[in-house]
Amino acid sequence: MSADPVRTGRSSPGGRIDVSAAAGTYPVLVGRGLLERLSDLLAEHVEVHRLALVTDDRVGRFHGERVADRLRSAGYDVTYLTFPAGEASKTRKSWSILTDEMLDAGLGRDAGVVALGGGVTTDLAGFVAATYLRGVPVVQVPTSHLAMIDASVGGKTGVDVRAGKNLVGAFHAPAAVVVDPDVLATLPIEERASGLAEGVKHGAALDRGHFEAFERSAAALLDAEPDATAAYLLDSIRIKAEVVGADERESGYRQVLNFGHTIGHALEAASGYALRHGSAVALGMLAEAEAGERLGLTERGTRDRLASVVQPLLEAAGVTLLDVDPEAVRRFLGADKKARGGRPRYVLLRRIGEVAAGEAWTHELPDELVDDVVERLAGPG
Amino acid sequence: MSADPVRTGRSSPGGRIDVSAAAGTYPVLVGRGLLERLSDLLAEHVEVHRLALVTDDRVGRFHGERVADRLRSAGYDVTYLTFPAGEASKTRKSWSILTDEMLDAGLGRDAGVVALGGGVTTDLAGFVAATYLRGVPVVQVPTSHLAMIDASVGGKTGVDVRAGKNLVGAFHAPAAVVVDPDVLATLPIEERASGLAEGVKHGAALDRGHFEAFERSAAALLDAEPDATAAYLLDSIRIKAEVVGADERESGYRQVLNFGHTIGHALEAASGYALRHGSAVALGMLAEAEAGERLGLTERGTRDRLASVVQPLLEAAGVTLLDVDPEAVRRFLGADKKARGGRPRYVLLRRIGEVAAGEAWTHELPDELVDDVVERLAGPG
Repeated sequence: MSADPVRTGRSSPGGRIDVSAAAGTYPVLVGRGLLERLSDLLAEHVEVHRLALVTDDRVGRFHGERVADRLRSAGYDVTYLTFPAGEASKTRKSWSILTDEMLDAGLGRDAGVVALGGGVTTDLAGFVAATYLRGVPVVQVPTSHLAMIDASVGGKTGVDVRAGKNLVGAFHAPAAVVVDPDVLATLPIEERASGLAEGVKHGAALDRGHFEAFERSAAALLDAEPDATAAYLLDSIRIKAEVVGADERESGYRQVLNFGHTIGHALEAASGYALRHGSAVALGMLAEAEAGERLGLTERGTRDRLASVVQPLLEAAGVTLLDVDPEAVRRFLGADKKARGGRPRYVLLRRIGEVAAGEAWTHELPDELVDDVVERLAGPG
Repeated sequence: MSADPVRTGRSSPGGRIDVSAAAGTYPVLVGRGLLERLSDLLAEHVEVHRLALVTDDRVGRFHGERVADRLRSAGYDVTYLTFPAGEASKTRKSWSILTDEMLDAGLGRDAGVVALGGGVTTDLAGFVAATYLRGVPVVQVPTSHLAMIDASVGGKTGVDVRAGKNLVGAFHAPAAVVVDPDVLATLPIEERASGLAEGVKHGAALDRGHFEAFERSAAALLDAEPDATAAYLLDSIRIKAEVVGADERESGYRQVLNFGHTIGHALEAASGYALRHGSAVALGMLAEAEAGERLGLTERGTRDRLASVVQPLLEAAGVTLLDVDPEAVRRFLGADKKARGGRPRYVLLRRIGEVAAGEAWTHELPDELVDDVVERLAGPG
């Protein structure tokens, strides 16, 4: 997983993107090997000397313990906290346990949280930081594609509850985000494929050029080829940062990032979270693109072009046939937090790289149409 | 409890104070009879048509059900939610239940929360609003002195946990605060006395004139005399609003509002919350004033002058002899969220109306001195 200067023969692409938030601007730092330099980056970007390093037990084994040791060597007082890997841990209960562990360790307002992991960790540890003593700084160190391009940028934190995903949480802008593409090589291929499948969203909804770059480099990305990955991440994060900077609280424009998410979240919940988030959103994008085409809002062929990128990734992610109860999907759609007056809302595309926006960034859809496009997901792609 | 124009013979004092917060300015509206006009005030200050009205079962009986009916008559879709009255309800569990009940009722991002009650309700329902779908608006309608002058102004929300009070929460500025002094007449005298005892703090720490007005009108306030109460509340809220406007996140100056709170919170926790919050803070002020005098930071006689106002209120609140384990107090002091590097911090007075500030707004104190002044609380006043 370490850098390979011989193979690339040049320094890797990387850089810094500044994201505007109500509480100030924070940097997203992208570059190979940044994880090894974490103590320097912390010293530069957050004024704390006591840290809770929060990670799941899987990422803990690969990176967490080493990172904790390195931070301690650099003089940080580190409380190392882990929780069982997986979406099932993204609960109020895990949040309570982590908070109590930090209190037991005597961490005060002069402490901070380092969230090291995928989207579950960045959301969960972010919510811990948002609410610990009414808020302490968090540095997000995402280790999955999804968390890198999405979960850790924009300040959304939260947990899942009985009624659905991310229904309880807070906006809590990080002090900094540290993205080291080298860690992606340690992910199982199914994870990587699922994350990349959701990654299609930024290009599909917002930037045709990015979508086309994705089409060209999909194989290298699935292979975790480091330079291709770093370049892709940087561009994808730039797109996200522009949206979040324009509308931190998701009162308007930021909603476009929910393309694929209304149906995606419901699929994920209806599967009992057996379906990975990225795969679920990818399926949601296909269904919502199809709904848009049927309504005449989305350019014809959009769904098929999306499918040609997404299907190979879904296959690599091990998603072959969708076996979820449409009744359950319908129930979870009703509880969606983007609902207004009890009706779920959908982001629809005009074409690849552009959303269809009328009076609002989101649309209502007839129930029968939603049922139809969801059912079609179970059939041949 | 209703207005008595014959007795007062003139319109009551009342008014509006605007509080600056990062998310915008919000109004605190003070006036007799405002509770009956709540639907108009909501229409003016918050853009929601679906509401969760959150209150405890005691305030529910006195006011809640009537308020819910009136709001419904005015066209609001009201989900009426109660929890058992008392500090023991200010937990993550109550927060979870309320959140789930709102989700079950299908409330979306277009909904808001109305918190009707004392400090437990304003803190708990405020935290529900802060975290529901990552934040929906809250209108605070405090029904106790404490909640009126303190808890509902400034955006602090939260719950108590094993390690102490308010250790988990969020800053979430209300959309508006509605203060109707008439509701205070329905409080038990012990509640009112305890609330007033903490109310001494704003004058003691920040405004000598307010402290002296308090000395003059203590009897009328304890009696819930409406005009005296409205005038006092308005002045007290003005003081609080100035502090919060200058430092919303309590990174500096806002800490002065914690006078009496470091020892107060520890006493409250060590008593198993048998001691009311206001009474505990009043005792904390006496102890912290004495500590300041012994260190030569606080003008001599300050503690006794405070005691002459506070003791009659504590007696009316039913606090006769303090029976808490000093060992337990010490343990809770160690877990105080104002601690830095594991050491609790204290706000000390220079004299009535002014805090002693050096390099920081707070000070460390020697453990023996804290033990001493805490133990003296158990003896004759």
